[in-house]
Formats: sequence, C-alpha cells, structure tokens
Amino acid sequence: MNLISKIENKDAIIAIVGLGYVGIPLALIYVEAGFKVVGIDIDKEKVNSLNNGLSYIEHIKSNRIKSAISSGFKATSDFAVIKNVDAVIICVPTPLNTYREPDLSFVLNTTRALVPFLKNDTIISLESTTYPGTTEEELKPIIEEAGFIVGENIYLTFSPEREDPGNEIYNTKTIPKICGGVTKNCLEVGVKLYSKVLDSVVPVSSTRVAEMTKLLENIHRAVNIGLVNEMKIIADKMDIDIHEVIRAAATKPFGFVPYFPGPGIGGHCIPIDPFYLTWKAREFGFHTRFIELAGEINDSMPVWVIDKVIFALNQVSKPVKGSKILLLGIAYKKNVDDMRESPSVIMMEKLRDLGAEISYSDPHVPIFPKMRHHKFDLTSVNLTQNELQKFDLVILATNHDAFDYKLIKNESKLIVDTRGIFQGDDPKIIKA
Amino acid sequence: MNLISKIENKDAIIAIVGLGYVGIPLALIYVEAGFKVVGIDIDKEKVNSLNNGLSYIEHIKSNRIKSAISSGFKATSDFAVIKNVDAVIICVPTPLNTYREPDLSFVLNTTRALVPFLKNDTIISLESTTYPGTTEEELKPIIEEAGFIVGENIYLTFSPEREDPGNEIYNTKTIPKICGGVTKNCLEVGVKLYSKVLDSVVPVSSTRVAEMTKLLENIHRAVNIGLVNEMKIIADKMDIDIHEVIRAAATKPFGFVPYFPGPGIGGHCIPIDPFYLTWKAREFGFHTRFIELAGEINDSMPVWVIDKVIFALNQVSKPVKGSKILLLGIAYKKNVDDMRESPSVIMMEKLRDLGAEISYSDPHVPIFPKMRHHKFDLTSVNLTQNELQKFDLVILATNHDAFDYKLIKNESKLIVDTRGIFQGDDPKIIKA
Repeated sequence: MNLISKIENKDAIIAIVGLGYVGIPLALIYVEAGFKVVGIDIDKEKVNSLNNGLSYIEHIKSNRIKSAISSGFKATSDFAVIKNVDAVIICVPTPLNTYREPDLSFVLNTTRALVPFLKNDTIISLESTTYPGTTEEELKPIIEEAGFIVGENIYLTFSPEREDPGNEIYNTKTIPKICGGVTKNCLEVGVKLYSKVLDSVVPVSSTRVAEMTKLLENIHRAVNIGLVNEMKIIADKMDIDIHEVIRAAATKPFGFVPYFPGPGIGGHCIPIDPFYLTWKAREFGFHTRFIELAGEINDSMPVWVIDKVIFALNQVSKPVKGSKILLLGIAYKKNVDDMRESPSVIMMEKLRDLGAEISYSDPHVPIFPKMRHHKFDLTSVNLTQNELQKFDLVILATNHDAFDYKLIKNESKLIVDTRGIFQGDDPKIIKA
Repeated sequence: MNLISKIENKDAIIAIVGLGYVGIPLALIYVEAGFKVVGIDIDKEKVNSLNNGLSYIEHIKSNRIKSAISSGFKATSDFAVIKNVDAVIICVPTPLNTYREPDLSFVLNTTRALVPFLKNDTIISLESTTYPGTTEEELKPIIEEAGFIVGENIYLTFSPEREDPGNEIYNTKTIPKICGGVTKNCLEVGVKLYSKVLDSVVPVSSTRVAEMTKLLENIHRAVNIGLVNEMKIIADKMDIDIHEVIRAAATKPFGFVPYFPGPGIGGHCIPIDPFYLTWKAREFGFHTRFIELAGEINDSMPVWVIDKVIFALNQVSKPVKGSKILLLGIAYKKNVDDMRESPSVIMMEKLRDLGAEISYSDPHVPIFPKMRHHKFDLTSVNLTQNELQKFDLVILATNHDAFDYKLIKNESKLIVDTRGIFQGDDPKIIKA
C-alpha cells in the first residue's frame, strides 16, 4: 500500500482532532518524530493558544508547543485541512449525558465533518473511549455512505488512548498501544501508523476487542476503588484503619494489588467509561452489576465525607452553618491540575448549601476555573500558620505532594483526612 | 521476658495445632530451623501418617516429613503435650456452615482443649482466617477465664496464614507474615516467634487489623474474579473473547492487574473467607455488597458452563442424557491436588443429574477422593487418542500444565473451554 510506505518514510501528514489531554501529547510525538502534523479543535481559544505557543495543560510545557510550532505544527478549527492529510486520529471527548448514557456527539460530529474532505488511501483511527461496536456500527457507515470502502480505500482502526497525566514512569511514547482494525488491511496500516512513533503496539483481533480492552481497564479501576470504599465504611464501623489494612495486605507479594479509598472518583475516565458498557449491555438484556454497584458506592463517598465533617464539627459544638471550612486539593488526583469530575467540587457545593464558608487550597489550581456545571469565585488559599488557624476544619481531599502536611497537622483545628495521610490516633484528626 | 530469650535461643518448644495445608509447612520450617516441634491434630489418620513419615499433601514430599521425624518432630492427638510447650500456633480450619455463617468450632474447641494444659509465659498465635474481633472477643475470654492475664503471663496474637500451594516463586518462609497482638507485649513476642524462622514479619497495630488484612486479600480476589466472570458473560453476548481482552488490557503497565474468569471459584479461602466479614458486618447493620455480588456471580459459573455444554451438544443434535462427557481437571486450580470447594465437582454432579455418563481426568488426582458432601466412584481417565475419541464432549475445567493440549484439541469431538486455553475460531471449541 502506498499509505504504508508514506508512513514509513514519514511523508504521511497526520491530523489530530481534539486537542486536549490526549490529542496534544500525541500531536507532539508525531511532530517530534519528524511528521508534518495539523491539529484540529472546534474550540477557537485552544487553537489560538496553541498557535501562540501556549499550553493550557499544566504537565505539558509551553516550550514543547513552541518548538512544535517552529517545526511546522499548526492548529485550526477548519476541517478543510483534512484534504491534504493521510491519517486522521480522533481524540475527542466521549462524556455521558445527564441520564448517564453515552454521548457520542463529539465523535460522530467529527466524523461527519471530516468525511467530505477525505481522500482515498487515508487512515482514520478513533482513540476516544467508547462501547464495543462503536467503530464498526457508527463510524464505518458514515464513512461508507460517502462512497468509500473501509479496508480497500479507507482504513479504520480503534486504538484507545491510555494517557496518565502525572505518571512519572510511563508516558505516551512508552505506554503500549492497543490497536484493532475493521479489516486486516486496516489493522496493518494502524499498527504501522502507531509503531512509527511509539515503543510498542499491541494488535488485537477486532475493533470491538480494542474498545472492550479500554473499558475493562477502567472498569477494573472503578470496581476496585468501589470495593475499598465499601471496605472503608465497614472498617470505620469496626474501628479499623482501612489504610493500615491495605498497606499490610500490600506486603503480600502475589494475588493482591492495593487500591486506596478516597472522597470519590474523578477524572474523565473512571467515573464515566464503565457506563458506556452498561448502556451497550442493555441491548443484550444484560445488567453490568459490578459497574452499577461501584458507581453507587463511589458516588456516595462525598456525602460520607460530609457526614464526617458534620460529626467532627458537632464534637466541638459547632454546626456546619457559619463554620469556616478549608478544602485541600480540588484536582481529582494528586499532583495534577485536572478538575474534571472532581469529588472536591461536589463536597464544596454540599458544604456551601449547608451554609459553610468554604475556601480551598490547591497548588496546582490557583484560580477556581470555569466549569460547565460548577461555579465558585475563589482563588487558592496560600497555606500558612496564620491562614490555617482561621479555619474551623480542613478537609484533606487530594494528597498532592506539594502540601506541607506537617504544617497542616500542627496548625489545623480539626482535620478530616480522606487519604490516610495522617497515621496513628489524634483526637483532632478524623479518618474519612 | 524469659519467653523472648527462649525463642531467641531456640529453646522454645513449638506446638502446631491443625496439620493440614498450613500447619505442616509451618511445622517443618520450625523443625528445620532447629526448634523442637510437636504437631497436634484430632484426625488420627493424619497423625499416624506423619509419624510414619508419609505426606498426604502432594506438594509436600514425604522425605521432608521423614527427616523432620528424625529431627524429633512428633504428631499426636493428645493436647496434654501442651504442658511442655512455649508457643502454640493454631492452624485449624474455619469453614462456613450450611447457612454460610462462620463455623469457629475448630478454633474454639482447640482453644478450650489446650487451655487446661497451658503454663505461664506461653504464646498462642491464631493463623486461621476469621472475622475482625475473633482473637479479642472469642479467644481472649476463654484464656482469661482459666485465670491467665493476656499480655502479662500469656501472649496472644493473630497472624494470618498466606499459604499458596503451587506457587513456584514464594513459599512459607519468603512470604511476609502479618502479625497483630492483643497487647504490645503480645505483639513483641509474636514478632519474635515468627521472625526467628521467616524472612519478613510485618507488625500491625491490633489483632483486628491483622484479621481484616487477610480478609481483604481474599475479598480482593473474590471480587476481581467475580468481575471478570461478569465481564465474560457480557463479552460472550457481544461475540468478544474475554481472554483476548484481558491479555490486551494486561499490556498496560500500571493501573490494571489481570484476573481470569473460570468455571467458578474453589479452594479453602476465596469462596469462604469473604463471608466471615459479611456475617460480622451484620452486627454493625452493614451489608457487604461487593462480597455478596461476587459470591452470586462466581457461584453461578458452573451453571453457566453447563448451559454451554447443553448448547454445544444440542448443536450436534444430542441431549445431555446418555452423552459421554469427560471433565478435565477436578482440582480447583492448576498444578495442585486440592479439591476443596472445586467447581468441577459441582459440574460433575449437575451433569450426572442430567443423565450424562460423566468421567474425569486429572493427573494430580488419580482417584476421586472421599469428600464430605460429594461422592463419585471414579478414577482418572488416562488421556490417549483412543480414550478422548470415546467422549461426545470434554470440558476443560482446570488448566493443569500436565495436560497435553494439542492431543486434547486434535482428538476431542467437542470442547467446552472454561480457561481460554484454545485461541482463535474453531467450530468444535466453545468458549465458556
């Protein structure tokens, strides 16, 4: 195939659609490997920012963007650039709607927008997490309605993103990449496309298997976190510190892997992806009971923590109403600035509704950002002895390495610790 | 403490109560380290066998028993030997009764039987898996009613066994040992007792934490196997091979750990231990929903496999009644002879009830053994071309390394594969 040799010779032009946590690192890898790359996003602010050499993601440095620009990388909102490209990699969001059903609109709108500009001998690869069958049942028909034949003059693959911002050991290049093709030819081109720039590509027998693989990875996490959250509640009733138990169990060198409880789950993957399978399973008359149970328990965690806050304040004869409460960490996991689906925001809202004076501190999020469903006019409190002493209670929500835990422990009046940071018995520390 | 120096100098005499999968390896380790050891079991057959230098557990060789005997090891059913010992380690079974409630009778009867012979300055360590609180709420009162004071003249610890027969990397000596004491003194003696013969002892803050640690390890396994079994059913409906998906997901170098589905769960731990927590949780008005769900799904697996058998035979116009069915592997996991709670036996009974002519082959179990609740007058079929061709269908239930899978694949008419051994598409192989 001409396309294979074009990729081999780095003559293929790559389009990355969706310039977020997944698309930007991937675009940079292709640029840095010597490919000509164009980035597409419907968000004009993002496009302008990138073209001005400015990153909007904390762990991606602006100088990497700048040097990509100087190597010829461009961002645009105009799908007409597709006319000249040989590979289109789709990295757009796949959220849930209000009823926790898959919202494929970004994927399908992208596909419809690019098809009019598609030429023969192009590969399209979807990276957005979705239910098994999406590539074959949704993307293939749109492409074939436009007159192409998948596997003959257009190649279609599903290759799930496995980005893990904040991971210091593995990155986009070193994380093995799953790839499934609609046909054998599709798979061959897909493997070529990715193996040219990534260390390891793992071919699987179908796009369905590739789609299911990504879901299983995240279902595994959602369920294991759900399990330890349930264990946390029962251990709490039995006056057992679940964090001590998990650390002890983790000394078993086989058959056990530690997952730690917390105030709920966040990020764009774990709270959302599993429900793509739940929805698709209904077509087969099947209930994904582990996913539902994990969702229910994980979703109940912010409320459980708030109950601990109410209890702790009550012990010192205070109601929540009028109490000054500081939440430490509003990113959904440690050492990142990602606030998507963060349980911290849920807790802040619930405490505000109860009448607390809520503040937050997060070294990774200096200003409370614009969010689709949440609004706070707050900036991050700088943690000092003086500041900490002003609050009736602090909630340790995200265990950033940047926090000064000794200062927090010494200067806070009451601490609700959702991360098992503070060990041992201290009446002012409430494990939650 | 005098006891500490006695242990340090290997002058302490050790009694191991319960000479099964846990007690024998532990007794041997103490003998081989130079301690004087006496083994106690109420089963006189086991006692005679050991005293005659014969092992009744496949992976423990008789010559190890023989050399222990020549080093002075003796087995007995008489608790009076306790009079002379300094440490009693209890390794008796903790099964469930018919209503899936904890059956502590072996632990409590053992404790009651040894207390009359107990002398001051002795340590008692319980290793049997049980619910949090057992050591403090059940054992301590029995010991103190006899006039001892735990922590002063008697030391009481809980140190869960972590035996894993068939594990070629880790053994009794190299697996880290959790230890919790009723008091600080108890913990100190317990850590001494185990660290004298094991590579690593992990002290925890209470016997409750030690008890919960073991439960969490096995709950983790039960739930993860339950999850992949549920995923297997949904993947099967979507025409996806779950084994391929799990292998692909396992290429992710973080955040995912592969567990594989099967025909159900067996052994003395995973199907049983989690329900000890379920039972105890009721005291706190709490439901252990992940455990219940895992139990329900795992218990349903043999029936799911039988449905695949019925379906496969039906495709070739045969009913189960009168069909000759061979079950491969009756041990509950590969490369061991342990049949406790094996789902193979459940499947054999169901197929027999449906009128199948059932046979089995298991290189580790030459004769179907005496079991408390199951009875088959069968011996293992020797797998040859000729034998395999006699059967209408074979069920691959346990993936022993000793099986000749090529022969099985070539000579069997129909194969129901519950272990994902046979990859790719072959109409005579049914994935289950």
